[in-house]
Amino acid sequence: MRPVARINASRLFSTAATRRAAQPFFAQEPSAPSVQTAIPGPKNQAAAKDLLEVFDIRSLNLLADYEKSIGNYIVDLDGNTYLDVYAQIASIPVGYNNPHLAAAATSPEMVRALIDRPALGNFPSADWSHILRTGLLKAAPKGMNQVFTALAGSDANETAYKAAFMYRRQQERGGSEVDFTEEEMQSVMVNQGPGSPQMSVLSFKSGFHGRLFGSLSTTRSKPIHKLDIPAFDWPAAPFPSLKYPLEEHAKENAEEEQRCLQETERIIKEFHNPVAAVVVEPIQSEGGDNHASPAFFQGLRDITKRNNVLFIVDEVQTGVGATGKLWAHDHWNLSTPPDMVTFSKKAQAAGYYYNNPALRPNKPYRQFNTWLGDPARAILFRAIYEEIQSKNLVENTALTGDYLYNGLETLAKKYPQAIQNLRGKGQGTFIAWDSPNRDEFLAKAKTVGVNIGGSGVSAVRLRPMLIFQKHHADLLLEKLETLISA
Amino acid sequence: MRPVARINASRLFSTAATRRAAQPFFAQEPSAPSVQTAIPGPKNQAAAKDLLEVFDIRSLNLLADYEKSIGNYIVDLDGNTYLDVYAQIASIPVGYNNPHLAAAATSPEMVRALIDRPALGNFPSADWSHILRTGLLKAAPKGMNQVFTALAGSDANETAYKAAFMYRRQQERGGSEVDFTEEEMQSVMVNQGPGSPQMSVLSFKSGFHGRLFGSLSTTRSKPIHKLDIPAFDWPAAPFPSLKYPLEEHAKENAEEEQRCLQETERIIKEFHNPVAAVVVEPIQSEGGDNHASPAFFQGLRDITKRNNVLFIVDEVQTGVGATGKLWAHDHWNLSTPPDMVTFSKKAQAAGYYYNNPALRPNKPYRQFNTWLGDPARAILFRAIYEEIQSKNLVENTALTGDYLYNGLETLAKKYPQAIQNLRGKGQGTFIAWDSPNRDEFLAKAKTVGVNIGGSGVSAVRLRPMLIFQKHHADLLLEKLETLISA
Repeated sequence: MRPVARINASRLFSTAATRRAAQPFFAQEPSAPSVQTAIPGPKNQAAAKDLLEVFDIRSLNLLADYEKSIGNYIVDLDGNTYLDVYAQIASIPVGYNNPHLAAAATSPEMVRALIDRPALGNFPSADWSHILRTGLLKAAPKGMNQVFTALAGSDANETAYKAAFMYRRQQERGGSEVDFTEEEMQSVMVNQGPGSPQMSVLSFKSGFHGRLFGSLSTTRSKPIHKLDIPAFDWPAAPFPSLKYPLEEHAKENAEEEQRCLQETERIIKEFHNPVAAVVVEPIQSEGGDNHASPAFFQGLRDITKRNNVLFIVDEVQTGVGATGKLWAHDHWNLSTPPDMVTFSKKAQAAGYYYNNPALRPNKPYRQFNTWLGDPARAILFRAIYEEIQSKNLVENTALTGDYLYNGLETLAKKYPQAIQNLRGKGQGTFIAWDSPNRDEFLAKAKTVGVNIGGSGVSAVRLRPMLIFQKHHADLLLEKLETLISA
Repeated sequence: MRPVARINASRLFSTAATRRAAQPFFAQEPSAPSVQTAIPGPKNQAAAKDLLEVFDIRSLNLLADYEKSIGNYIVDLDGNTYLDVYAQIASIPVGYNNPHLAAAATSPEMVRALIDRPALGNFPSADWSHILRTGLLKAAPKGMNQVFTALAGSDANETAYKAAFMYRRQQERGGSEVDFTEEEMQSVMVNQGPGSPQMSVLSFKSGFHGRLFGSLSTTRSKPIHKLDIPAFDWPAAPFPSLKYPLEEHAKENAEEEQRCLQETERIIKEFHNPVAAVVVEPIQSEGGDNHASPAFFQGLRDITKRNNVLFIVDEVQTGVGATGKLWAHDHWNLSTPPDMVTFSKKAQAAGYYYNNPALRPNKPYRQFNTWLGDPARAILFRAIYEEIQSKNLVENTALTGDYLYNGLETLAKKYPQAIQNLRGKGQGTFIAWDSPNRDEFLAKAKTVGVNIGGSGVSAVRLRPMLIFQKHHADLLLEKLETLISA
């Protein structure tokens, strides 16, 4: 089964917007959204009531009919069809019911991966190396040749933190040959030092790195994410608060970034729980779509190098093509690669990449768990990456993103109150702006057939899939203007 | 596609052991293990070298050919066929290449679950309620009617801990209507109290609950699992150290359990970081197969009740039928059900069950993440549970377990040095003993065609699948005697 895209490219569409699409990736997509009921419609309401009895969905957005959803369009239980620029919180990469992924999902190796799930550290399958080399590792960031597989963003980050702590303590101990002391072996069993060290991971204010205990200790997005959960005494540095448009604030933004870098280095030098690693998102996503320049990240890499601190780049939301590069940190031209790069979401698989062999702990079973990821998801990732390559989707995202950004810039000039601090220029479709009545705006977007998400306190964030094209951008701009002008 | 078991029941097997199997669940299984090469064989060695370049497999046991593996038998790359009583660290439930699971894995709903993976808290599929009600919830422990879905044992436990902390703080605050204070909202963003409370989860010495930062803080199995990783200052209570055979040590074992209960209650009352929950395994598994009596667990339930502490039963390894009950805590006849029961491994899905509606935090997005589990794995669980029901596999495990235990008891009498502290009577196939040269014993077992695991420092642990039958038990006993007498 091969992708069907481009086969029906000559099909006639009825709107101005879709006429511009010479080669839609999903020829069977609807030509436009359609909303026939109040939202939520009666079927959604009934189903939600039923589901809520057994599963907490007070965060419900809509109940989806995935059988009918296709490409960039999600369909709800009442048959309403939305252009989806939220994409399961930025995690659907190449469209609903993508035929190439469907082929991978029904392959014999996928069936085996599902029903004979191995404990990968003990009993890997004969083809595990091949699956990694033709998939996850083929897509590895520059300078990275190994992968630790996990299950989602939170445990991808936490296992990277664990690798950092073990690496650092190994250094302090005098190398991988030096064994643990009796005191370490005893104290660790009662969660005390020196076996359980008082060390830390530095993260940035407004950053988001997950919701388990270690990752949540580095998450600084919103109180609601953290309240009542014990946290490690780890430090947070300020993340640059840039002013827009960037062209008009170059000097003060550069100063702001310098201030943040200086403060970061001060904390690393002075914080009472020694910093083993710095973790940072290329674009703070849940925290409100906060950007910084390549110079800031280069500065950060330099600081970590000269302070012997590991540099972990959290690409859980930015990774896999959305920013117009395969990995967002490709925009930075770093002098040396990050020490670890974590991924999840659009990879539909999770884990961290690395290169330095010393990041493997000195003994087996130190970085270990029963499943060590999921081969089913690694097989799916390979199919996603094949789609990305065969359809030039990173290039598509870069081009469509520029086109969309320009359209939004025009809208922002026309409606400066409605679209504030437009950001993400040159970052593919990873675009956001601040909206004065953001939550109301997001809810209303559904009524015109657009599924769109927010981040932080006031940002509208665009997270379309990699198969979002110019004709979708035209449609989206048209719908946004309808909403704003209403 | 329906299960093929029982169709070829009349097939003639060649060994004494297999002749006893009137109705093998997997008629196409080999009649016995076979080992043709040194272990590891040449193909395993070559493949391991290749894989080690990109993936840390210093914990490698063998490289498996899952295409050829079937039922209770795992086949390695050199064609060696092992009776598998380790089952991917106790996680394969109903046999390799189970046809009923294969049918579920190729169903249209599975394909959609794989390629259109939803953010379940925001955009659940139309059939998510149905999948839960016909699968995970149908198998729910008595008194539990809701489920929070996670991805593996570690995050299942950690999200249960989070629920416990939020519940406890909500109580202290005066109920779900009372809002957070400004001080809480501020302090939590810098990981300090009162927003990030100094509270704890009490676990037991030798317990294992996972390897992420929160779960690892409750894990007390071995130093190697914990060294160099920061941990929360949480308490550990003693777990009973029973003497075997139980019949001969009834009085002192009862006293030992009382001692542990008293100490547990003392810690709950006195520990400096207030205890929000107690977590316990029905049988400490990674920690060495340590058992306690129903009376101990009833006592624990009573202690948690009277101290207003939540009682979390970690059934990650014991759950889903292995102990001769669907859930191991069914053996206890508790006065009131646990507050939460966590699961993973043989469920091939993960999460926690609960009942009390107050365990849903007072606001949405407090217990949340992007995926909230994996519908693909929930669909697979349903197929597993259908197999368990249609083949009476819990009953099978209870009966086969008793049969196997009796055989081991006879062996232990004959070889008291080789089989010490035999335990797990009446606990299905969840059987273990101490071996004086355990690691050597496990390695040698491969040479006679048995894949078997260890736990703790000296235990040999049996973790066969639920489809392990009397003829497999005969084979295993025969092979064990061969090894022991050699």
